[in-house]
Amino acid sequence: MTVIGLLTDFGIKDGNVGVMKGVIAGINPDAQIVDLSHHISPQNIAEAALILSRSYAYFPPGTIFVAVVDPGVGTQRRPIAAQIGEYFFVAPDNGVLTLVYQSAERQNKPIKVIQLINPAYWLPLISHVFHGRDIFAPVGAHLSSGANLDDMGTPVDNPVRINFPQPEPISGGLRGEIIHIDHFGNISTNILQIHIAGVEKLTVQMDNTTIPGLVRTFGEREPGELVALLGSTGYLILAQVNGSAAQVLHPKIGDPVMVFFDNPSLKE
Amino acid sequence: MTVIGLLTDFGIKDGNVGVMKGVIAGINPDAQIVDLSHHISPQNIAEAALILSRSYAYFPPGTIFVAVVDPGVGTQRRPIAAQIGEYFFVAPDNGVLTLVYQSAERQNKPIKVIQLINPAYWLPLISHVFHGRDIFAPVGAHLSSGANLDDMGTPVDNPVRINFPQPEPISGGLRGEIIHIDHFGNISTNILQIHIAGVEKLTVQMDNTTIPGLVRTFGEREPGELVALLGSTGYLILAQVNGSAAQVLHPKIGDPVMVFFDNPSLKE
Amino acid sequence: MTVIGLLTDFGIKDGNVGVMKGVIAGINPDAQIVDLSHHISPQNIAEAALILSRSYAYFPPGTIFVAVVDPGVGTQRRPIAAQIGEYFFVAPDNGVLTLVYQSAERQNKPIKVIQLINPAYWLPLISHVFHGRDIFAPVGAHLSSGANLDDMGTPVDNPVRINFPQPEPISGGLRGEIIHIDHFGNISTNILQIHIAGVEKLTVQMDNTTIPGLVRTFGEREPGELVALLGSTGYLILAQVNGSAAQVLHPKIGDPVMVFFDNPSLKE
Repeated sequence: MTVIGLLTDFGIKDGNVGVMKGVIAGINPDAQIVDLSHHISPQNIAEAALILSRSYAYFPPGTIFVAVVDPGVGTQRRPIAAQIGEYFFVAPDNGVLTLVYQSAERQNKPIKVIQLINPAYWLPLISHVFHGRDIFAPVGAHLSSGANLDDMGTPVDNPVRINFPQPEPISGGLRGEIIHIDHFGNISTNILQIHIAGVEKLTVQMDNTTIPGLVRTFGEREPGELVALLGSTGYLILAQVNGSAAQVLHPKIGDPVMVFFDNPSLKE
Repeated sequence: MTVIGLLTDFGIKDGNVGVMKGVIAGINPDAQIVDLSHHISPQNIAEAALILSRSYAYFPPGTIFVAVVDPGVGTQRRPIAAQIGEYFFVAPDNGVLTLVYQSAERQNKPIKVIQLINPAYWLPLISHVFHGRDIFAPVGAHLSSGANLDDMGTPVDNPVRINFPQPEPISGGLRGEIIHIDHFGNISTNILQIHIAGVEKLTVQMDNTTIPGLVRTFGEREPGELVALLGSTGYLILAQVNGSAAQVLHPKIGDPVMVFFDNPSLKE
Repeated sequence: MTVIGLLTDFGIKDGNVGVMKGVIAGINPDAQIVDLSHHISPQNIAEAALILSRSYAYFPPGTIFVAVVDPGVGTQRRPIAAQIGEYFFVAPDNGVLTLVYQSAERQNKPIKVIQLINPAYWLPLISHVFHGRDIFAPVGAHLSSGANLDDMGTPVDNPVRINFPQPEPISGGLRGEIIHIDHFGNISTNILQIHIAGVEKLTVQMDNTTIPGLVRTFGEREPGELVALLGSTGYLILAQVNGSAAQVLHPKIGDPVMVFFDNPSLKE
């Protein structure tokens, strides 16, 4: 039973995700469909890329991800499917797979990307505005039934990638930025565990708020305190114990976050 | 593996949808349950009818839809199950199937409606307020296991239908109205592709806003522009490219939308 | 096919629930995963306990519930798994199973609780902040594959319980409190059917609002009226017909609700 993971910005109130699942069930009744998220901010390709890249490796090998955040639907943007390491991805070619490509490259895993041009794997009628239903879900379902990626289209050598800002060195530390705010109001930065490896003490600063040290987990401080810690996928996050850091700090995606390494002048 | 599609106004926070799935799994462990939506506006039978009618045909034949928007639960309103073309429906008899009946009639598909009176297909205890759990989910599960509709109750000749306003001709065009506002803030009217078939140019007007022409898809205009286009199920929709038309136009369900056909005086 | 029911406060936008499902599918592809709720208020153990206790018995025997509302993740709080009657539960030992224990005790069903200490049933890497993914989901998946509870850890004699206030007798009636507000704005009290059994007439009072009598279901009164009735799991609830009692009464969890039995002076 192959898993198909769905990631969209469709929300769940209008029936569109249900329709994609109906289409999949009609092609492969044995596919096991898992919702990764349907609450990506509308048209936010970067957010979808982030959620996908930090999640996919927890699924069983062979899982097919259908990722539809698709502001260019119906234009010349290409529909693609990709085999990346042990996983498959079906998506518009708009950069939503950028971080998965990078992850595979770091691990020397093979990447094969195909432009979907063979309508034999699509619904008979293709709308201009809902390729999730008409192209991406059917292609994912056919892949889950054992269809061959190579039969679905032609190779793509230069799939679209989008730019993800990296943390930059500053005097005494790093300047990162906010890349995600989660359901709990935890604030994720683009600073990874590897960026601060070996650092014994550090101070995190956002706007006028300074958070000392790093805790291992929320429960090490009292409810209401702001803490900095490494999240479950290795990113440095800011949180409020039993509360919402977002409600305290009012962050926006892209806002700067500074980390200072063991800097006495800051800790007076 | 038969698909059971669920459509309710229950939301997803209180466990009620989960309980319906638990009941189904207890009766038919092999049923494949798909959420169509649980975010129908509370008690909004017309909205549920719309979502159901535009979605069901994308599911595999034999799919059983359990549609529970049920303000009359526990009163004399009848619980029904229906076989309509290749699909089954289980619902309160309050008009939620109106558009499915109409769709079947246009296609000359058979309609059989049964009033559910046989408690052998229900849970042992029936509450006054949650027939989704106690009657509709179990009936759907038994249908998915191969139970016979005719054994569940007695024929209904006059199932309840609700009125859906149709677009009306006005001087130079059509007067429609708003029937749905989706997760993206796209505004759907009750004007269908067939109502404007053959029209080469048109102008859409809502309140004091005029939108020229029809585009095929969002990406044909610049971000922020308002556009009119045909949605993926054939309804004329108003949208803002990469934005929310609802935030710009503040529509309410039932608000009028005018379409003028190629009318030079309007386009000066 | 064993059912695994998931209950968390994770929300559904960040992919964390999807990742738990991916982990489960990797361990037991045949498990059938059902969402009970992922919208428990953040860190609200009591609310999770309530939803779980009133829902679990509607699932088929053998169902495994993975309940992760876990403000103490990564601290000394114990991870546990339990066999309670015909059901299994995997959770942090923070009281989220309190009402399930009580329910089993009332029914003289056996309770076995194990502290999870055997990492053979976990993911290889354990984060400090996401045991839902790293411990609880894998343990649930292994149980669904037939793993033995006793092999997973050591017995716990004194699992944590939290206090749930009970209704108290007052002159002429009972004083209860609000324990849940649902998606429709219905207000649930901690007053159960058994607390008012045999009472022929009663009056419900909250703040300055008095609601006469008990109705059996919503449709017995006109839209807009406030009514008191027994909800589908036996709790006394306050509702507005076709509306939201919460929007009218602005309740908070813990607010008092009084019930007066057949008290003429109140009914003048």
